[in-house]
Amino acid sequence: MTNKISPESILDAIKSCVPNDRDFIGLHEPHFSGNEWAYVKECLDTGWVSSVGKFVDQFEEKLAEFTGVKRAVAVVNGTAALHVCLKLVGVEANDEVLLPTFTFIATANAIAYCGAIPHFVDSEEKTLGLDPLKLDLYLKDIAEIRPEGCFNKYTRRRIKAVVPMHTFGHPVDLDPLVELCLRYHLELVEDAAESLGSYYKGRHTGNWGRVSAVSFNGNKIVTTGGGGAVLTNDHSLAKWAKHITTTAKVPHKWEFYHDQIGYNYRLPNLNAALGCAQFEQLPLFLQKKRALAKRYQEVFKTIEGIRCFEEPEFALSNYWLNVLLLNEEQAEMRDALLELTNNQGIMTRPAWTLMHKLPMYKECPRMDVSKAESIEKRLINIPSSVF
Amino acid sequence: MTNKISPESILDAIKSCVPNDRDFIGLHEPHFSGNEWAYVKECLDTGWVSSVGKFVDQFEEKLAEFTGVKRAVAVVNGTAALHVCLKLVGVEANDEVLLPTFTFIATANAIAYCGAIPHFVDSEEKTLGLDPLKLDLYLKDIAEIRPEGCFNKYTRRRIKAVVPMHTFGHPVDLDPLVELCLRYHLELVEDAAESLGSYYKGRHTGNWGRVSAVSFNGNKIVTTGGGGAVLTNDHSLAKWAKHITTTAKVPHKWEFYHDQIGYNYRLPNLNAALGCAQFEQLPLFLQKKRALAKRYQEVFKTIEGIRCFEEPEFALSNYWLNVLLLNEEQAEMRDALLELTNNQGIMTRPAWTLMHKLPMYKECPRMDVSKAESIEKRLINIPSSVF
Repeated sequence: MTNKISPESILDAIKSCVPNDRDFIGLHEPHFSGNEWAYVKECLDTGWVSSVGKFVDQFEEKLAEFTGVKRAVAVVNGTAALHVCLKLVGVEANDEVLLPTFTFIATANAIAYCGAIPHFVDSEEKTLGLDPLKLDLYLKDIAEIRPEGCFNKYTRRRIKAVVPMHTFGHPVDLDPLVELCLRYHLELVEDAAESLGSYYKGRHTGNWGRVSAVSFNGNKIVTTGGGGAVLTNDHSLAKWAKHITTTAKVPHKWEFYHDQIGYNYRLPNLNAALGCAQFEQLPLFLQKKRALAKRYQEVFKTIEGIRCFEEPEFALSNYWLNVLLLNEEQAEMRDALLELTNNQGIMTRPAWTLMHKLPMYKECPRMDVSKAESIEKRLINIPSSVF
Repeated sequence: MTNKISPESILDAIKSCVPNDRDFIGLHEPHFSGNEWAYVKECLDTGWVSSVGKFVDQFEEKLAEFTGVKRAVAVVNGTAALHVCLKLVGVEANDEVLLPTFTFIATANAIAYCGAIPHFVDSEEKTLGLDPLKLDLYLKDIAEIRPEGCFNKYTRRRIKAVVPMHTFGHPVDLDPLVELCLRYHLELVEDAAESLGSYYKGRHTGNWGRVSAVSFNGNKIVTTGGGGAVLTNDHSLAKWAKHITTTAKVPHKWEFYHDQIGYNYRLPNLNAALGCAQFEQLPLFLQKKRALAKRYQEVFKTIEGIRCFEEPEFALSNYWLNVLLLNEEQAEMRDALLELTNNQGIMTRPAWTLMHKLPMYKECPRMDVSKAESIEKRLINIPSSVF
C-alpha cells in the first residue's frame, strides 16, 4: 500500500514509530538509565570534580577501546577537539582546509580559529557527506603539488587538510578519500562528532584520518553534558594533544612552566564520570537506535515522494539522527512539514544552513556545491532518541 | 617571641594553622557540603545536563547579584571568559594588550588567541598585581594618543587594552588604573579569575572594567568542575557575549543560521548545578578562609625574615591562596622550603614562571619588570582550602 505524501501523512508515519504517551518528542534527548548517579556521586564524595581524576582516564580508555584507536584524549567539547586536530596536523594561518559546505558550524569555525581559510566541497546523496570523486575532479583543476605540499593555483595558498564530516552518523566514502589525500599530500582529519558507533567497512569512523574529533554534547549518542575527544593512532600526537589541551604545562611537582601556547580544553572529571556511565550503555543505545531507524525506513516506504535515509552499503551507521529526504518535486513541502510537526510536539528540523551562505564564510573559496544545495532544500531530521 | 627562620620553623608554623589529622593537605581543595548532590541529581533526573537548563540561568543570576554587576554570562572556563572579554572590547590581531608578567598563563594565552601581542608590565609588592604608577610612567614614554586610539611609538602597533589580574584574590589598585585607562583610551578588562569575593573600596572586583573574567576551576573558591563567566554592566555586551559563546546561532525554532564566527563556550547545565550549590556556601567559605589567613598572619609574625601577605588597606580580599613572602636575603631558602613541605604532605608551590621568560612570549614587548622578578624568587603559596 502506498500513501499520498502530505505533511499530515508524514506526521502520522513519524508518530507510528515513536512513543505515543508524551506531549513532546525531542530530536535527541539524553538517556540516563545506568551508573550515571553512582559515578557522578563518587566525584562529589571524593572531591575530584575538576581537571584530573580517574574518570577522565577511564573515559579515554573506554573510548579508545570502543573505536579501536590507540589513544583518545578527552576535551571540553567537539569544537575544541576539531581545533586541536587541525593544530596537530600542522594547519597554519592562511592555509586552506577543505570541508563540506553541508556541515555543522563547528567544522568551519575550528578552521577559522587557526587563522586558516575554509574551502567548501560538495556532498553526495549516497552518504550525505563529502563527495570524494567530485573533489578529485576539482583538485585536478585547482591543485598543484609542490615539495612543500599541495597548493591552490588560483589563490596561491597551501591546501593543508581535508575534514570530512560523517553526517548524522553516516560514514563518508573513506577509501577513495584516503587515497586522494595520499595523492595530493593532504592531511585527513575526520569530523566524527556525530558518528560514535558508526563503521566504514568494519572499521570505526575516526580511525581513518591521522587525527579525528568526537563530540559528547547533550544531543549526542553518548553525552558528558559538554565534551569531546581527539582520537589518534599516533602516540606522539596523542601526547602532544594532551599537552596542548592542558595549557602546555611541563610536568613538575610544583613549577609552572609552559613551553608553547596551549589551551584550557581538558574535560572535567565530573563530566567524564557521566561519560563512563553512558559508555556502558552504548551497545544498547546503538541497538535501540537501529531498531528505530528500521521502523522509520519501513513506514516511509509506504509514502511516495519521500524516503528515510538508509546507511550506504559499506557502512554500519549509528543512525544518530534519522533523516527524511523529500524528492526534488516535493521540496516545497518542507516548511509546512516543519511547522506541522513542531506545532504537534514532534520536534523536527531542516538541514543546517550551508556554510558558504553564512556571512562570515560567503567569500571563502568553493567548488560547485549544487548537490549540497539540493540536499539542504529537501532534508528533515526527525526524532531519534533512544526509545 | 621571634623564631629563627628555617624551612623547619616555616613548616611548623604552617602545620599549626591547618588540620593535623590528614596525611596530605592540598593547596586548595573543593568543599562540597551543601546542595551539590541534590542539584546535580536533578539534572540527571530531568535529563537537562547540557547547554540549556535552569541552573545555567540561576548560576548567572546568583553571580551577577553577588558581584553587583548587571549581567553574568557563564562559560566553559576562565580562559574562555578572558578570550571572550578581549573580543568584546574589540581586541584585534596585531593589537598590543598590557598585562602583568606575573600572572597565570591564561591571561597571556587569551591575548594570543586573538592574534594580539602580550605586552608585559611590572607588579607592585603591595598588591602582588599590576603597578599602575609604574605603568603610567612607562606609557608616558612609549604611548602616543591618536584619534584611532593609543599607539606604541616604537612598535607602531595599537595598544588596545589593559588586563590586570587580581593575584591570589588580592585586588590591584584600581582607582589609578581606571583613571589611566581613561587618559590613554585603553579598555580595562579585569582578570578576576581568582578574586570572587574580593572587593576594592567596597565594590566587588570584576565590576570596574567594561568586562571581566571569573573562573570556577576545581581549585577556585567556588567550583563547577570547570567553568568561568564574563561579567559586565553593559547589557548589549552581555547579549553579545551570550551570542558568541553559543556559536553565534541566531535564535529560531528550527533554523541553523550563524551570523558571525562564534565559540562553543557555553557552560553545561550539569556544571552550573554544582556552581549553584557552591554559591550558597560562598559566604561561609569566605569567612573560613579569612580566619585561616588571620591564623597564618599571626603565626608568621613570630618568624623573622618572612611575612604572610595581608590584603592592602583599600581591599577586602577573599584570600584565595595564602602567600608567604621571604625577605630578599632569605630568597635562596625557597627551594628547600618547597622540598620539605611537599615531602611532608603539605602542598606548597612557587610563583608562576613569569610570562616574559616563557619561550612563546620571550620576544614580546615589556617594561622593566624587576619587581615581578623579585617577587617571583621570594613567593610561596601555602595550603588555603576551606577548613
